[in-house]
Amino acid sequence: MRIRRAVPGDRAAIWSIIEPVIRAGESYALDRDMAADEALAYWLGPDKETFVAEEEGALLGTYYMRPNQAGGGRHVCNCGYMTAAQATGRGVARRMCLHSLDHARARGYRAMQFNFVVGTNERALRLWKSLGFAVVGRLPLAFDHPAHGHVDALVMFRAL
Amino acid sequence: MRIRRAVPGDRAAIWSIIEPVIRAGESYALDRDMAADEALAYWLGPDKETFVAEEEGALLGTYYMRPNQAGGGRHVCNCGYMTAAQATGRGVARRMCLHSLDHARARGYRAMQFNFVVGTNERALRLWKSLGFAVVGRLPLAFDHPAHGHVDALVMFRAL
Repeated sequence: MRIRRAVPGDRAAIWSIIEPVIRAGESYALDRDMAADEALAYWLGPDKETFVAEEEGALLGTYYMRPNQAGGGRHVCNCGYMTAAQATGRGVARRMCLHSLDHARARGYRAMQFNFVVGTNERALRLWKSLGFAVVGRLPLAFDHPAHGHVDALVMFRAL
Repeated sequence: MRIRRAVPGDRAAIWSIIEPVIRAGESYALDRDMAADEALAYWLGPDKETFVAEEEGALLGTYYMRPNQAGGGRHVCNCGYMTAAQATGRGVARRMCLHSLDHARARGYRAMQFNFVVGTNERALRLWKSLGFAVVGRLPLAFDHPAHGHVDALVMFRAL
């Protein structure tokens, strides 16, 4: 598995990864009916650096990094990670997160923040905790989960 | 004091309010050197509803409201408030916040969240607490204050 920068030729494969996650609406606060162009404009936006995890020519996952705030908040980055449905359970998100921590340090970021980890997303919570992130905030009932209704969302943070 | 929706004719007056706050860089995580057009595009962006507080034809303050997240997070709004330098201490921010709470309820929002209250901004912290907001998160050293260096930023939240 190799992690590299996304290129324009990856758009279709990135869409095939992020579409099911967006449509499910269980882990990201994004409009579930987002069109491909809109979703790709978001994921590959000019405010972001976007990477893909590739193995034998197939994309297994993708992530982005951006400053979480401008101005006096610019030293903290934010990332979002999505793994291809057929590649779950293989440590792709862990690999991407480790890559992003290294990249963030190289870029001079001082910390990484996840703004909105859905409280029912136990796999993600376990993974981020194992990678050194702490829950620094809890947003009461801030996410309307399609199966569970209103559930808390968590703010997670780690220094770099 | 009357609070009403911002109109295109307010742009110059809004800029005169928000420019000193942005240039000071002490309370908002925005680029301190933002140009007028860029700042107004942000403050009056299509994702936002923007209001002004007016008295005898002069603007005393301005605020915006937007969904804090999309999709499953759309029922929580986010606001930003700025008071004209010459109108501080007159309760303008309090009036605007009370207006925003009413407006948010009318819009069907279920909660309001402030993502990034600079920890040294004691006046704002006291005000938001007095209006029912709780600190639900603390972002360690997430704000680079021009005078105090790296200080915590707080996440504040209240149900509606």
